[in-house]
Amino acid sequence: MDFTGIAREISSRSNISVSPKDVERLFGALKKTKLPWELIDLSDFPVPSVFETMRVLHEKGLVLISDRGFKLTRKGKEVANEVHPVEDISCSMCDGRGINLEGFSQLEKRFLKIQTRRPKAIRRFDQGYVTPKTTLSRFAFSYERGDIVGKEIIVLGDDDLMSIVLGLSGLPKRITVVEIDERLTDFIESTAKKEGFQVDVERFDLRHPLPREHTRRYDTFFTDPPETLKAADAFIGRGISALRTPGSAGYFGFTRREASLRKWHDVQRMLLKYKIVFTDIIHNFNEYINWGYEEETRAWRLSPIKVKPKKNWYRSALYRFETLPGFRGNNKDYNNENIYEDEESSTT
Amino acid sequence: MDFTGIAREISSRSNISVSPKDVERLFGALKKTKLPWELIDLSDFPVPSVFETMRVLHEKGLVLISDRGFKLTRKGKEVANEVHPVEDISCSMCDGRGINLEGFSQLEKRFLKIQTRRPKAIRRFDQGYVTPKTTLSRFAFSYERGDIVGKEIIVLGDDDLMSIVLGLSGLPKRITVVEIDERLTDFIESTAKKEGFQVDVERFDLRHPLPREHTRRYDTFFTDPPETLKAADAFIGRGISALRTPGSAGYFGFTRREASLRKWHDVQRMLLKYKIVFTDIIHNFNEYINWGYEEETRAWRLSPIKVKPKKNWYRSALYRFETLPGFRGNNKDYNNENIYEDEESSTT
Repeated sequence: MDFTGIAREISSRSNISVSPKDVERLFGALKKTKLPWELIDLSDFPVPSVFETMRVLHEKGLVLISDRGFKLTRKGKEVANEVHPVEDISCSMCDGRGINLEGFSQLEKRFLKIQTRRPKAIRRFDQGYVTPKTTLSRFAFSYERGDIVGKEIIVLGDDDLMSIVLGLSGLPKRITVVEIDERLTDFIESTAKKEGFQVDVERFDLRHPLPREHTRRYDTFFTDPPETLKAADAFIGRGISALRTPGSAGYFGFTRREASLRKWHDVQRMLLKYKIVFTDIIHNFNEYINWGYEEETRAWRLSPIKVKPKKNWYRSALYRFETLPGFRGNNKDYNNENIYEDEESSTT
Repeated sequence: MDFTGIAREISSRSNISVSPKDVERLFGALKKTKLPWELIDLSDFPVPSVFETMRVLHEKGLVLISDRGFKLTRKGKEVANEVHPVEDISCSMCDGRGINLEGFSQLEKRFLKIQTRRPKAIRRFDQGYVTPKTTLSRFAFSYERGDIVGKEIIVLGDDDLMSIVLGLSGLPKRITVVEIDERLTDFIESTAKKEGFQVDVERFDLRHPLPREHTRRYDTFFTDPPETLKAADAFIGRGISALRTPGSAGYFGFTRREASLRKWHDVQRMLLKYKIVFTDIIHNFNEYINWGYEEETRAWRLSPIKVKPKKNWYRSALYRFETLPGFRGNNKDYNNENIYEDEESSTT
């Protein structure tokens, strides 16, 4: 099968860079599922391109599309049989995150209870939060790396409730949250009061430069930017300018569901220019809970099959980096610019 | 404690960039061990800087050095008590690699038996090979990513015996090995004959450009370069020039035992210029077996305490990347230049 030719056709039709490997993986995924959201999860490239690929494969007589899902035709099956089956062989104990949560069972218990009362995701702020196990794993991971104990930590946008896990642990020296959504700032503040930990919470729109009292003040930051280059620059760039010394750590999530590997490349180059160094990139570390407003999204409109997702299908990689001597962040003001949408995004 | 000041002093004395975070971690490690090689394993920064740090701490009255190891003084203990304890909380099932080996038990059994007869590491070629579990995990990891089944694969330098695991699996379409050490090429060839798999083995010095019959011919490569910038450029650059289409995959190991995070940054920037994108960086994925010629190395000469390592202490991260449209490799000829040593290296 000419995957290179198909990849070229899809890249040009969807205006998103798709590789022969992406198309091949999609065929492997079609052997496992007929449902659109699971297909995206397994194929691991941007939503608009996956759906465009299904249209192309339909036109070529390789796939049938019905209300019940996608189905390989006999011709399609012949192609699929040549390719590698998509299998999940990630470690069943840590779900591929590589981290042992056993030492944190009390923290886990308390956080699991608290987060049941959390505000739901809303579309207005492009929210979509991770499973509590993801937040706990992110905490354990950064704990192991020495980025938590006795550290001053800032969380830029906190719908994943990192600040609550940090606060419950009692380990950081100081925790600051900047977050645009009042429901979340209220929830974090009232939880802190009830559970008896300190956290400075501030309502803030990350399109604006970080106030001076937060620059060069922290050892560690966490953020989960929307997946455009500009939003990554704004959110992660603010994070870097909040850091104090070389060897400070930044954490962010970045998905392939809304970002091609070309965009990943652009983000990597952009961030290296700020004089940071990537120390870890962990595939599918972050698992997001289906946010409930699927029908309002571009992804839904693009889908050739209108069914709600049953399983969690949106995942992202966890990036960790450290600052080097001479590092600098981004304090450009984006004012009210829409930095949240591009060709590849689809969940707003 | 002024970790920033100490870091600056060590950076200038050892001519290697060391961060306050590195120094802090070393104090955390000193709470766990008094042995030099374990200290380096836990501290996770270059050997020459770790030993230089111990000298500085000794001068400052924070550490005692004797034949039995390092020992924190009372003043040193006060500093250590302020810092984060270094703990291994990586998943006990997958050792933090995130990969499940259960599906490969037959392969594991066969490989474990075969590798017992392998040639030992020799200093002449800067050899040091990984544990068989590391090689098997590397295989499983790349299998999951779709880089093995039906693929044409080249291994550039193969003291880790990747080609044997690949051959035993029966899954790749084609396997090529280029390797300088005749003992290894002989061992791989005779194993292939005995076990009945195909592999093309060629004696080759990676300082020279890859012959034309190997360029743009493969889907996947594996390599484990010496840790200088030039050797990384040569080995990984040859790998990239061996790849065929966008979406091809490259794997390499890179340690912090012989490379500062500044060098990591330089390697990352250098490789991004070849139009690749990093998809995974997994900390401590590769565990090396103590190579036996420790006393002949620079690391030994630098160590203030002359004891042989008891446990494996040399680890490196596993990097995976994919090529993007317009990617290119490095086919510069280094002739007989010594590209294997720099300020930060110490195991040759």
